Order: sequence, then structure tokens, then C-alpha cells
Amino acid sequence: MPRFRHLISIDDLTREDIEYILEKAEKFEDVARKGYSDALKGKLLGNLFFEPSTRTRMSFETAMKRLGGDVVNLNTAEVSSIAKGETLADTVRVVSEYVDAIVIRHPREGSARLASEFSSVPVINGGDGAGQHPTQTLLDLYTIKKESNLGNLKIALVGDLKYSRTVHSLIRALRLFDATIYLVSPESLKLPGDFVDELGEVIETDQISEVIDEVNVIYVTRIQKERFPDPEEYAKVSGSYRISADTLQNAPDDLIVMHPLPRVDEIATDVDLTPHAVYFRQAFYGIPVRMAILSEVMGYE
Amino acid sequence: MPRFRHLISIDDLTREDIEYILEKAEKFEDVARKGYSDALKGKLLGNLFFEPSTRTRMSFETAMKRLGGDVVNLNTAEVSSIAKGETLADTVRVVSEYVDAIVIRHPREGSARLASEFSSVPVINGGDGAGQHPTQTLLDLYTIKKESNLGNLKIALVGDLKYSRTVHSLIRALRLFDATIYLVSPESLKLPGDFVDELGEVIETDQISEVIDEVNVIYVTRIQKERFPDPEEYAKVSGSYRISADTLQNAPDDLIVMHPLPRVDEIATDVDLTPHAVYFRQAFYGIPVRMAILSEVMGYE
Amino acid sequence: MPRFRHLISIDDLTREDIEYILEKAEKFEDVARKGYSDALKGKLLGNLFFEPSTRTRMSFETAMKRLGGDVVNLNTAEVSSIAKGETLADTVRVVSEYVDAIVIRHPREGSARLASEFSSVPVINGGDGAGQHPTQTLLDLYTIKKESNLGNLKIALVGDLKYSRTVHSLIRALRLFDATIYLVSPESLKLPGDFVDELGEVIETDQISEVIDEVNVIYVTRIQKERFPDPEEYAKVSGSYRISADTLQNAPDDLIVMHPLPRVDEIATDVDLTPHAVYFRQAFYGIPVRMAILSEVMGYE
Repeated sequence: MPRFRHLISIDDLTREDIEYILEKAEKFEDVARKGYSDALKGKLLGNLFFEPSTRTRMSFETAMKRLGGDVVNLNTAEVSSIAKGETLADTVRVVSEYVDAIVIRHPREGSARLASEFSSVPVINGGDGAGQHPTQTLLDLYTIKKESNLGNLKIALVGDLKYSRTVHSLIRALRLFDATIYLVSPESLKLPGDFVDELGEVIETDQISEVIDEVNVIYVTRIQKERFPDPEEYAKVSGSYRISADTLQNAPDDLIVMHPLPRVDEIATDVDLTPHAVYFRQAFYGIPVRMAILSEVMGYE
Repeated sequence: MPRFRHLISIDDLTREDIEYILEKAEKFEDVARKGYSDALKGKLLGNLFFEPSTRTRMSFETAMKRLGGDVVNLNTAEVSSIAKGETLADTVRVVSEYVDAIVIRHPREGSARLASEFSSVPVINGGDGAGQHPTQTLLDLYTIKKESNLGNLKIALVGDLKYSRTVHSLIRALRLFDATIYLVSPESLKLPGDFVDELGEVIETDQISEVIDEVNVIYVTRIQKERFPDPEEYAKVSGSYRISADTLQNAPDDLIVMHPLPRVDEIATDVDLTPHAVYFRQAFYGIPVRMAILSEVMGYE
Repeated sequence: MPRFRHLISIDDLTREDIEYILEKAEKFEDVARKGYSDALKGKLLGNLFFEPSTRTRMSFETAMKRLGGDVVNLNTAEVSSIAKGETLADTVRVVSEYVDAIVIRHPREGSARLASEFSSVPVINGGDGAGQHPTQTLLDLYTIKKESNLGNLKIALVGDLKYSRTVHSLIRALRLFDATIYLVSPESLKLPGDFVDELGEVIETDQISEVIDEVNVIYVTRIQKERFPDPEEYAKVSGSYRISADTLQNAPDDLIVMHPLPRVDEIATDVDLTPHAVYFRQAFYGIPVRMAILSEVMGYE
């Protein structure tokens, strides 16, 4: 029996569920690393991406294909065509007649949950607008487990803490693991108050330099230009939350820097060459984690 | 020997051909229902969709992949690029060098026939403008066979009988099966006169209520707003040809409601929950029927 | 050991490398001709096409799938999305974590070379703007080998010799095979002087009729309207470099006409029916040649 039928929100999972998935992902690492298995041979995944998301879609497709399964993708013209002509409920009902599981990415919050109510097969949320992106959170946790220490974690969340869906989901999961959380953001992009209340004890600051000696993970997110009415204000703010090799000069050896990607310039390319940079490995970890999720919902132990 | 090399128009098939395909489809039902077979292993289908058609494309792709074959799709940018630079004949000549069969969907009537003349492999028409869509007709017939009675059929065709390609193809096939046909449409969207002449005896009406006790299948099609210069006229007409749970309140238990999908609002969602609704199963039946067609043209018995 | 890790430019290959690939391609001909093999089972190709190229993408996908491997394609919406948000280096770094090899097509010259510097897996150049398109050159050479005589070649290059990437790459390779080269173009589209200098002895003319008795291959390229400020000048020029059955009336039997496709009207369709036309077979030869390249970089002997 799968531990869950659908995967819509990280909040639907217990700490035990998460630990189980991370352990399962570990078993798939060899296959994920340019390998191949027949675990999902004959299974078909429907990739319903109503907005582009290169990494998420390609990593689900890679995961499925390296497990011996196959994928049917919506194409770009079909997305616009559906948008004009049919409810999401109807699309999902039909596609779930074809495939063994569905990954949905949709700009509207709540759409993955809605899809799960009309689908005859498991639905995995690949990101629903301002809502949830649980597979990103799971791969973030997996990265921490592999590259740092999930059991005794001190993590600084840096950048846009107000709007970032990735940060909000990650925070929810981190509470289950008793992490110490540092919030580093400009005043205008602080984590919303009700979130802070939920978290209990947190350390808030607007200076990266103040936390760099105290944490073992720095998780950087993109600050989007569109959030700032004033371009000068944006330039000032984004510059202050930019990580460079220089920023990390005196950092402890085992400090890791994570980023969900794509980055624009919040992490300078000179960081790529330091031992702190794990964000490309983090992208890779999407493969074993999504293999674990896909095989779980499709009933492969 | 395949019974046909290309499948361009339903008119190219005899009643025996059709019955043969429907029986073959029945044998594929288990595989179609989340199963897998090696019947077409090593075969490659070229999906040339010059306009979007989610259901048709995805169901061909699903059919091919569950039979162990694989698919090469045109992508959206390639469609526009080809449109600017090359004749359809040349595109088909080249692609037919790569794959084992081609499905073509194209906005221009006659394009599938043309493609078949230049292709070195079998061509299946996936819909050519106002022309034909024979695989839709075959799955419609299969649905009737499975969910009702193809041998003693009384069917009401409802909605846009003037322009609907789906209706025109279906009518042509129904003649082969001696069905009794009821035509239900607004005056402005009546079946063209030459069609009616061909049919011999038909019953025409503009009221759904008049036929609901007499038929075993109601086949609903979409009335498109664009057909009406006057929005008020459209509102009035579309309202009168809308089926709801209420419409079906006194219908016989075994009356089935079909629709080629996508629907907009010609069938209310409260019908979905009644035993009359078969349109989502109808979408599923596209898989075994297309499996039968693909395996036929690619020489799998 | 593969003879090369990446394939970026035809200039990176020696004559021995080229001969080796052409021989390897020959071994794959049966598989390419609607066959199937398990040579690359479990391998995954990333098709990163940042601009449309139907033939190149579809033939790589066909080659990979007929060798038992699979493909992950960028879709059209993802291309625009990446263009706005991420450097090519980052995209390639991430995708190379997923797949076993990458084919990249990009409008910017030098992008394939750049990609190879950031990729952790082999990169094959599928055309980079005004730069290189080495797999086209290899399939051109293969076509000559199969349909004519690569060892004692007299070839006329016709049309746009100034801008055509295909011609420039082919010329570079032909030097390795001691071919006699005839250049046939309008004054305004002549091969650039430094190229001519490199070639040593060449015969230049602006009349096709002057060379038709002397060569065994005519390689035609498209003259693009956009190159001419004056539409009348274009009409005159393009008319003069158009090949028809009439042009070939007195041609030797074994003269072959090649074209990289798509053609517009530089070759009349009445040529298709003559024994001189090899351009559709040339398109087919893209399959065995790309099979040879893919299997080489992925370590299959």
C-alpha cells in the first residue's frame, strides 16, 4: 500500500512519511545517476504542465524514463487550446483514463487539489501558483540530508521570504525536523507575520554577514524585480542579498549554499567553484526524489 | 495483410472492415486499461499535429506506448516554422523516411489524403479541417457497441448538425449499420439537405424532449458561438440544446449520452453523476480503438 | 574509448575520424531502416533545441529511439521561459545532471562550444547560428559515399555560398577528401575570399549549365529572399539557380542532386521523379549517421 495516494501539499505528510521517501530516494540514487531500471516498465505518466517549468518537468520525465516507464506531455499549443475550451476537471478526467499517474503544474493556486478530486489516478502537484510545490521541498530536504545534517540543522533562508512558495513549503517541513531557522530579508520582503508566529523561535536579520558563522545551510531565493515599484530600491536590495565568493570567504568549510534555480544574479558564478556550492547537485537530487515519489504512488515498493 | 494501408476517410471502410476493427479493439481493452504489451515494440509513430488536439494526440501516443512502441511528435514551434518554409508533401516525404506510420492532423481539408500520396508509410487521418476524422467515428461506434446496441440502434444527433465534422462522419458510418437516426437541431444548424437525402428515412425535430423516450443514444455536439452573428440568438439556441440531469429525469435507464469532448456547457456537470453519462468512458475507448488501428496498419495481427 | 567526447565543429575531426563514423553509420543502416536495436537501452538524450529544426531534432530522436534509448525534449514554452531567466551555462549544467548526452541547437554562434564547457556529459552541436552544423556535414558526406563517389569527387556547390552554414562546413570537410570543387553562385552570394584562398584550386562560375557535364554531384542551397534589398534582383537571381528536370536533360546518368532541405523552389518538383534526385534519401541518411554519432559519444562500440 502506498503511504499516500496523491501528493498535493507537504502538509499532508508526517515526518515519518518524509523520512520514508528520503530513504527510498537514496535507494534510487544509482539508477538516477545515468542508470536504468525496469521498476516502472509499462507505466505511463501524464505531464500536465500548464505553465513552463523546465527543471520540474524534465526531472519528472527523466525519473520516469530511467525507471523504465514512459511519459505523455501536453504541448505548448495544447495548453492554450485547453485554456480556451475546457474545464480543468474535464481535462483531468480524460487524461486520467489514459495514464497511470499525473503531474500537474498550473498557475492557479488550488488547481492540483482540484485535479486530484476528479482524477481516477494519483496526482502529484508540480507547483500550483502561490500554493504548494511539495516535490521541491522533498528534494531540498534530501539535499540537506545528503550534503549537511537534517537532524541538527541551522538554516538561513535568504531573499524573498514574503512571496517565495519554495520558502513557505520548506519552512513548513523544517518545523517537523526541529531546525533552527534564520530569516534574512529586506524589510519589504519579510516572512509574513502568521508564518513567524507558527514557527515559534526564529532569528530575523537583514544582514547575511550576521548569520554566516552560525548556520550550516544558506538557502537563497530570487528577489524578483517586479516586486519593486522603484527600480533603484530593487537594485539596492538585490545587491545586499547577493552571495559571492567574497561573502563566503570566512565561512566554515561545511557551510552549504542551496538555491532552487533558476538563479539570476543572487549567487555570483564565482561561488560555483567553491566547495559551498551544492545547487547543481540539488538539481540532480530531484531525480532520485521524484523516482521515489513516482514509484510510491504507482505502487512499486 | 492489413485490411487497409492508410485510414483517411470512414467512407473507405466497409461494414466488415469496421466490425473487424471494433473486434480487434476489444482484444486490446485490457492493455488499454493501464496495461502493457510488446505488440509494437521497435515501431515508431510520427505524430504530425499541425493544430492542437489534446485528446486525439495524447490517445494515439498512449496507445502506441502501451503497445511497446514509441512516438515522435512535432512541437509547437516546428509547426509554425514548417508553415513558413516547406510544402506538406516534402515534410511528409521526409518524416516517412524516419517512422513506421504517421498520424496527421491539419486544418486544411484534404491534407491527410495528400499526405498519404507522398508518404512511404501508412498515414492515419487525425482530423483534416472540415473533412474527416475517421478514428473519432470508430471510437464512437465502439462506444455504442460497448455501452448500448450497435445492431438495433436509435440515435439522436443533437446540436450543430450543419458544421460538425464528427456528426457527418458518424452519420456516414451509421448508414452501414441500419440505425434509426433522429436529427435535433436549431433551424440554422440543420443537417445539410444532400446529407438528409442520402440517409433516406430520418426524423427531424428541434426539441430534445420529443425524442428522449424513443432513442437509446443521445449524441451531443457543441454549438459554437462563432456561428451566430447575434449573441442573443446564440444564447437562446444553445440554451435549448443543453442537456441537464433534469432533461434526463424521465429517460429510460439504458439511455446513454455521448459527446466527443471538449464540452463547454452543452452538457451540465450534474449529468456526469447519472448512469447515462458515458462521455468519459468514450474518451477512454479512444485507446483500444487506436491500438487496433495502429497495430493494423503496422502489420500486427 | 570514443574517438571524440563532444562534436562541436567538423574541423575537430580528422579524415580518419570521419571515415570511421561513416563506416559505423553503414553498420546501423538496417536498424535505421525501420529497425530496432538495444544498443543504447537505458540511455537518455537531452534535445535542447532553442530554435526549431524539424529534421535535425526528429532524426536525432528517431535515431535514439530506434537504438532503444529515449529522449527528453525542451518544449516551445520552456525555450522562451529559459531565454528570460537563466544563462545557457546554468541550463546545460542542470540538464547534464539528468541525461547521458545533449544535442543543442541555438541561434547564437559559439553556444554549442560554450555548452560543452559546462556540461558533465557529451554535447553534440545541432547547429549554432552562423557557426557549425557538423552532423549535417557528416550526413552529406555519407550521402556522397553511398550515392556517388567520395574518393574521386567533383562537386558543384550552387546557390548561396556566402551565408550558407551548410556549404561552409561541407567545404571544410571536402578539403580532407581532395574533392574538385565548382562554385556556382550569383556575384552577390559568392563564397568569401578567405575561403576560396584556403581551398586552393576551385572553379568559379555563375552558370549551372557550364558545370553540369563535369561534376558527379550538384549540391543546391536555398537563396533567401531576405538577402536581397531589391525583390526584382532576388527574382532574377533565384530563377537562374533553380534546377528543373529540364536543366538536367542532358546530364550524365550518375549525376546526383543533393539539398539539405527544406527547399522552397530552388529544385522543381519535376526533379523528384528523376534518378538524379537523392535529397529525400539524404534526409534518411541522417538517421544512420546520427546513430553512429550518438552511439560513439555514449560509448557503444
